[in-house]
Amino acid sequence: MAKVTIIGSGNVAHHLIRVFTENSEVELVQVFARNRQSLSGVVANELITDSLSELKPADVYLISVTDDAIAEVSEKLPFSGKLVAHTSGTQPLKILSDKNRRAVFYPLQTFSKEKKINFKEIPICLESENPQDFEFLKSLAKKISDNVYDINSEKRKALHVAAVFVSNFVNHLYKIGSDICEQNELPFEVLKPLIVEVADKIKYLNPSQAQTGPAKRKDFQVIDAHLAFLENQPKLQYIYKTLTQSIIQENEKL
Amino acid sequence: MAKVTIIGSGNVAHHLIRVFTENSEVELVQVFARNRQSLSGVVANELITDSLSELKPADVYLISVTDDAIAEVSEKLPFSGKLVAHTSGTQPLKILSDKNRRAVFYPLQTFSKEKKINFKEIPICLESENPQDFEFLKSLAKKISDNVYDINSEKRKALHVAAVFVSNFVNHLYKIGSDICEQNELPFEVLKPLIVEVADKIKYLNPSQAQTGPAKRKDFQVIDAHLAFLENQPKLQYIYKTLTQSIIQENEKL
Repeated sequence: MAKVTIIGSGNVAHHLIRVFTENSEVELVQVFARNRQSLSGVVANELITDSLSELKPADVYLISVTDDAIAEVSEKLPFSGKLVAHTSGTQPLKILSDKNRRAVFYPLQTFSKEKKINFKEIPICLESENPQDFEFLKSLAKKISDNVYDINSEKRKALHVAAVFVSNFVNHLYKIGSDICEQNELPFEVLKPLIVEVADKIKYLNPSQAQTGPAKRKDFQVIDAHLAFLENQPKLQYIYKTLTQSIIQENEKL
Repeated sequence: MAKVTIIGSGNVAHHLIRVFTENSEVELVQVFARNRQSLSGVVANELITDSLSELKPADVYLISVTDDAIAEVSEKLPFSGKLVAHTSGTQPLKILSDKNRRAVFYPLQTFSKEKKINFKEIPICLESENPQDFEFLKSLAKKISDNVYDINSEKRKALHVAAVFVSNFVNHLYKIGSDICEQNELPFEVLKPLIVEVADKIKYLNPSQAQTGPAKRKDFQVIDAHLAFLENQPKLQYIYKTLTQSIIQENEKL
């Protein structure tokens, strides 16, 4: 039975609490939150503590707090020589205090408290200072996910940049599509099957094969018509031009 | 029994042929292709013609050819007064020759010949010159899709611009994510669950609610680290800056 303690009460912490609580091979020992209220209804009251000095023994302490609080929290832990991992995609392993055995346990997904997620599909990216800890974290990660990866701090940084492009920026393009619909009294619903299919295609085709549209075809008649359509919205026109040029250059490389 | 003839043999034509052939309430009368070979294995040989003069009577002729060929093909049809619709998202109804009753039958989806699609979910956008034709097309569209919309040429243009943002541009961001993975010896597989979840979220949250990431949080420490990471790739750095600024401005509007 792997004994896990979670430090934090944000989106990622919520999802980890849920998946560990539901797993019969993991014992959730405790959850630390500065504000106990933030966990009400999420985990049994007797498992919550708001004092780091009350932390009980566990096999691993997962620090799931905002990026800028990781260093401080890891420094304040009232013990040393234990396995401590943070769950951040952006921070290196070395941000953790070296008084404990440092590691990273990063679930690569976009979490909202409102929406339940199938954890089995979430890639978990692991890194640790020593091999035994890596084996322990791997066995823990495999209890909750089918996709476990060994990814060091340098690669994790690259992965996070890539993730910003395919998730945060993609969602912003959805927002722009939604705005254009609203401005033209069109239901955004019309675009949703397209959005889902474009993402689904990625399972079967690589993004180069899947690319379609006027920029890919160098159809300047359509491109010019679209730019004219956006003439009163310079910001959108600018984004349209930037991405269209990038697609055209991409194809010229091939 | 609705009698339908399809003129064309591209991606959209292929999918329409398949869905009409499988539907017991529709009779696929004929398919026209300049090159009969392009339809081999897709439709019974006796239904294929390569001569417009051999077209038999049908309730509707769906012109599913490249945008720049629509006008010419519609002009060459050897009859008048019949219902003729094109399937393009970018072209107005009026591009069709006015010797026939003009309409548009536009399935809004990204089609690849390789990948089968559940047509029931595809929005079909209809427009017609006269109300009876509209009713006929609506009943035809409802036989194959649960999402049928009345969208005129002006709105269809807006919809197509929005579709470029949420599909072609989104796919290009997937390509960038895939390139960053490749450059850093990371499997693109790691990002796929994230890609699917970001698209899936749109069913439950609007894109403003769903937005996450460093730009949304105005986390300039992470943004600067990402820009530094991309310093040898000015094109990617430029796209990163453009979309980050757009997200930041978006939030300042709220």
